[in-house]
Amino acid sequence: MTYCVALRLRGGLVMLADTRTNAGVDNISTFRKLTTIERPGDRVIGIMTAGNLALSQAIVNLVTEQGLSLHEGEPLETLYTAPSMVRAAQLMGQAVREIYKVDGPSLEAQSETFNVSILLGGQIGNGQLRLFQVYAAGNYIEATEDTPYFQIGEHKYGKPIIDRAATFETDVGDALKLALISMDSTIRSNLSVGLPIDLMVYRRDALKVALSRRIKDDDAYFKGLRQSWSDALTRAYQAIPGPEWEF
Amino acid sequence: MTYCVALRLRGGLVMLADTRTNAGVDNISTFRKLTTIERPGDRVIGIMTAGNLALSQAIVNLVTEQGLSLHEGEPLETLYTAPSMVRAAQLMGQAVREIYKVDGPSLEAQSETFNVSILLGGQIGNGQLRLFQVYAAGNYIEATEDTPYFQIGEHKYGKPIIDRAATFETDVGDALKLALISMDSTIRSNLSVGLPIDLMVYRRDALKVALSRRIKDDDAYFKGLRQSWSDALTRAYQAIPGPEWEF
Repeated sequence: MTYCVALRLRGGLVMLADTRTNAGVDNISTFRKLTTIERPGDRVIGIMTAGNLALSQAIVNLVTEQGLSLHEGEPLETLYTAPSMVRAAQLMGQAVREIYKVDGPSLEAQSETFNVSILLGGQIGNGQLRLFQVYAAGNYIEATEDTPYFQIGEHKYGKPIIDRAATFETDVGDALKLALISMDSTIRSNLSVGLPIDLMVYRRDALKVALSRRIKDDDAYFKGLRQSWSDALTRAYQAIPGPEWEF
Repeated sequence: MTYCVALRLRGGLVMLADTRTNAGVDNISTFRKLTTIERPGDRVIGIMTAGNLALSQAIVNLVTEQGLSLHEGEPLETLYTAPSMVRAAQLMGQAVREIYKVDGPSLEAQSETFNVSILLGGQIGNGQLRLFQVYAAGNYIEATEDTPYFQIGEHKYGKPIIDRAATFETDVGDALKLALISMDSTIRSNLSVGLPIDLMVYRRDALKVALSRRIKDDDAYFKGLRQSWSDALTRAYQAIPGPEWEF
């Protein structure tokens, strides 16, 4: 399984992905699910994927290396050449559809579903910082100020804290903490989501990556955050007064 | 959908169930999913059900009213006559199997699954306070000091807080707060889980119900708890120091 969360805030973008893949609980591996494209001064784009790993890798290869065209006869484009984030999302959707043409029928013949979902966030040139979620059908939705975050993969365990605390105005540093707490909740409850985790932070209009970091199980900050959060939760619920109901 | 959670603690038992049922998002109703059997001085048993409502109701009717026998030719028993909680769990499992015989084939003919899960907790006479989870196959597991709680239905949103904070030694009043917080997290994230919620608290060895309460959306304590918890979470994550990483 997988857990990826991305928050698009007034101040920037936070993207966080785990690295665990599994084909059954007895076949677990580590694969990077966060890909960052950076051309300082021109663009920063983060891609996170969940679902079938072969599909994810094929799609990322197509949009970052091989290139594709939205309409027949047009020159090949990649996320390095796309002129805008909307174009980048269109290319990503098109890549999903092209890989579906290649792999979809064979998967269906094996009774497997074409299972892939993608988060695509970033900023190109003078354009806006945008965040998209691309579905297995190649269509996509965009994060807004009302709903500033997207999750893919095993999203339920880590949703309550983000739901309650994250808004478009949340500070980038606070959003980073929320993403890590959300990831920690997921890792604790689902064995198929695991460390290390990959983090990317982007400050709006910087056009360069602010922070790119792999967090492993010996990471002192993450260990401290896990413990602080557990302690704080316990204190928090204990501090809520009990009901006046007699029992 | 449904969310039910039960905690078996050194001091007693807390059972909490929502009441929302839905056949599609456009067909929502309120049904009680927590049934309490009480004979003061003799027994207290709580039953909570998730899954197909017709199956749940048929099973509860069988074990509380109609009665059934574990072996052919034996007299009918109900949860009012069962001599022990283990016997109660066996009867519940047998009831699931009997209803499967009646309804399983027709459901399968309609491509529906035989979908039901049950939590059964309580104490009978001089026996121990016990908590069981009964599956759709009629088999069951029992909560232990290592894992003192069970959830059925939409369990993921409400699991992290219970996972982190609840142990067998948790005070009954604290466990009640944790159950309500867990329910609140689920209600916020899943529209198919909703108020009112039904609560039952039992003190070990009391052989009478300590608290039985329906919590509606105008319940002052639950409203206050929701707000306090949201505020506390926000303060808690903000109080965690940021990383020393530069970004």
